[in-house]
Amino acid sequence: MTYTQLVEQIKKKQSYLCIGLDTDIQKIPAHLLNCDDPVFEFNKQIIDATHEYCVAYKPNTAFYESLGTTGWLSLEKTIQYLNKIFPSHFTIADAKRGDIGNTSQLYARAFFETLEFDSVTVAPYMGEDSVKPFLEFKNKWAIILGVTSNAGAKDFQFTKSWDENESEHFFPLFHKTLRRCSQWGTKENIMFVAGATKAEMFKEIREIIPDHFLLVPGVGAQGGSLKDVSTYGMNDNCGLLVNSSRQIIYAGNGKDFALHAKAEAEKVQKEMSVYLKKI
Amino acid sequence: MTYTQLVEQIKKKQSYLCIGLDTDIQKIPAHLLNCDDPVFEFNKQIIDATHEYCVAYKPNTAFYESLGTTGWLSLEKTIQYLNKIFPSHFTIADAKRGDIGNTSQLYARAFFETLEFDSVTVAPYMGEDSVKPFLEFKNKWAIILGVTSNAGAKDFQFTKSWDENESEHFFPLFHKTLRRCSQWGTKENIMFVAGATKAEMFKEIREIIPDHFLLVPGVGAQGGSLKDVSTYGMNDNCGLLVNSSRQIIYAGNGKDFALHAKAEAEKVQKEMSVYLKKI
Repeated sequence: MTYTQLVEQIKKKQSYLCIGLDTDIQKIPAHLLNCDDPVFEFNKQIIDATHEYCVAYKPNTAFYESLGTTGWLSLEKTIQYLNKIFPSHFTIADAKRGDIGNTSQLYARAFFETLEFDSVTVAPYMGEDSVKPFLEFKNKWAIILGVTSNAGAKDFQFTKSWDENESEHFFPLFHKTLRRCSQWGTKENIMFVAGATKAEMFKEIREIIPDHFLLVPGVGAQGGSLKDVSTYGMNDNCGLLVNSSRQIIYAGNGKDFALHAKAEAEKVQKEMSVYLKKI
Repeated sequence: MTYTQLVEQIKKKQSYLCIGLDTDIQKIPAHLLNCDDPVFEFNKQIIDATHEYCVAYKPNTAFYESLGTTGWLSLEKTIQYLNKIFPSHFTIADAKRGDIGNTSQLYARAFFETLEFDSVTVAPYMGEDSVKPFLEFKNKWAIILGVTSNAGAKDFQFTKSWDENESEHFFPLFHKTLRRCSQWGTKENIMFVAGATKAEMFKEIREIIPDHFLLVPGVGAQGGSLKDVSTYGMNDNCGLLVNSSRQIIYAGNGKDFALHAKAEAEKVQKEMSVYLKKI
């Protein structure tokens, strides 16, 4: 999917909601456990119920890998279903991959060719050659970890750093991540993960990368405020994908779980439409 | 596997060789492509031929994921074969995973319970809660990326950093990675990836973490010198696992490919036995 197509979808649906398909076999409604593939069945019903209100879906690969080959098959069926039935939704493999160049290329093939996702999340620690292979596929995206919403973010992402190539002399490491990684591609093939529990930080992030899309986890169950994120993070083309997982997909736990998910997604979309009116 | 068991194996076999099962369907001998599962068949023959000369096997998950569910199945069969036939070999899932706490726990389950590897490589960028779940499994290991052997290592791992909690004021970021991550566990459940193309760096690494095992990629095809690594990196319990992938597994390309791999592995083991005599 291209940048322009994504922005069009956001404007059309008045939504920048991404739904995280963090599907945990131990948390899905009990009646689904009798299905051939409970994880896929859960995803399918969630997608069918919520697709009007969101522009993106993001399965986190850990949930699928924990089930071994069976889980990998559920992931494969989920992305195939999305691409076939809802091709205008942006798809994110939240896999946080990264390896030396040749090996990253295989990860890129895994997620862009074998599974046909639009994008994959990428860890930056191994540097340029670990990210670049993800940028060589037409209309595909690398979503690089900039600053994350977990407590451990402070360990390295906020380390005071110095770089002789930069004018600033001390800055948190994630500034360098944003600055340097954004030079490896364009706003058309790179997004950044930007943790939402620190909404005041969106101002400094936007000073470094005004134009890139930000994937914002941590709104909802993880406690971030959608209003703050939208106020400080939005740019002229929206530039935000705000993710919600548990709050939506586990809104209900009975046979009507998908209806509860739909209501929750609609609620978020309504709020988003208010913030979008300002751009 | 415990620390003591690993050291015993190294002494018994006079080897600290790890063989990287970076099995690329496009590179394996053509006659194997007729098998039901060419990737597993290749791995099986490589393992059967080389097990005497190495103490560890390390499949890199990218090679398997690029083939989708089929590849994941080959990986599953490979680890099952290793655990059943060669249980005294240390096994490494070279997956470079890392996510927020709850999600990392699922990755830990994927590699320690579903697939039953002894260890998994972990990316440190997301900090403590992204690594800790891997340390909560008895006799299992997290192998954290410290400094890697690729060109991109310079982008972040060598960033001059400052940390108010440390006595040193400026140091490359990877020093902090080693120092901080080593506090999250012990030499019994943490190892570090230490890139071998910079052998002179092993001295500084050993000043920070004298006791931990180092997993050293990049000897062989990637150009590092086994002698240098051993001279500067070895400690009283060896403390090294030196990986070789392509140089061994693709030593031959005909029907006798496994014999060529065996000869290559034996050559490395012989050289290692010389360096081990010094401890």
